[in-house]
Amino acid sequence: MNRRAVQDDYPDDMSHCYGCGRLNPGGLQIKSRREEDEMVARFRPEPGHTSMPGFVYGGLLASLVDCHAMAVATDAASRARPEEGIERFVTASLEVHYLRPTPIGVELEIRGKIEELKGRKAVVSVRILAGGVECVRGRVVGVRLPETMYRPANRPVSNPG
Amino acid sequence: MNRRAVQDDYPDDMSHCYGCGRLNPGGLQIKSRREEDEMVARFRPEPGHTSMPGFVYGGLLASLVDCHAMAVATDAASRARPEEGIERFVTASLEVHYLRPTPIGVELEIRGKIEELKGRKAVVSVRILAGGVECVRGRVVGVRLPETMYRPANRPVSNPG
Repeated sequence: MNRRAVQDDYPDDMSHCYGCGRLNPGGLQIKSRREEDEMVARFRPEPGHTSMPGFVYGGLLASLVDCHAMAVATDAASRARPEEGIERFVTASLEVHYLRPTPIGVELEIRGKIEELKGRKAVVSVRILAGGVECVRGRVVGVRLPETMYRPANRPVSNPG
Repeated sequence: MNRRAVQDDYPDDMSHCYGCGRLNPGGLQIKSRREEDEMVARFRPEPGHTSMPGFVYGGLLASLVDCHAMAVATDAASRARPEEGIERFVTASLEVHYLRPTPIGVELEIRGKIEELKGRKAVVSVRILAGGVECVRGRVVGVRLPETMYRPANRPVSNPG
């Protein structure tokens, strides 16, 4: 799949996220792309990303829900109000339901849909499937990046990602 | 601090969790200990654990909430019904509220309390503080490890952590 991901278009100084920043070499590098009416990311956990042996760690699944949801918000905002350019969202709250244990060793499919986009706020629903079986359901509230979290590249940063 | 953590007493074949397994060398190795009436874990994120530069990644914070909450559940169960031995809990649902951006570069304090323990179910509330300031609030529902997720050491495991 060669199409650009939402995260490929995040500005450089907003691309250090551990979950999805293309400039964070040790991170997860989650990539979210449109497929028909849903946004989809595909991710294969590392062998060490376990909870109990054989199953995927819940914190990793929460991370996939989180970053993918924020990409869904950016995508929805880009289409609803393209004149604003790329809008970067950050998570205000995250809700994850582990419907069944998620097997490790298969590629996961993370599917997200915008539920609400109003001003600075976005609500996104996410599902994670393993081998076509839904294992995780999430709901994420994001807000457009607040000024307090943004340090342009020419301002000093104490801990670059 | 030399006191044993809850995770130090998890059985070996339940100690591969990416977040808190002492047998997962590449994992986060979260350690939860009792301090007066609360369970506390202390964790210093790596420089790469960023969201926006300067702030901690939300998925990592969700992971800290998750594993610490399950340790709180184990601790509460051990004290309420010691005859059961070590009870290992896994997450059924996770709710995380990011009250304010969490600064990176300081040690985080993760504080948890049992809210409900009834049969196989535990509900835990968690707060994360940075420099004494509360940045994250979480609520986690755990269930005692179901048989479907448990593979004793002598059963083959396709992807050891």
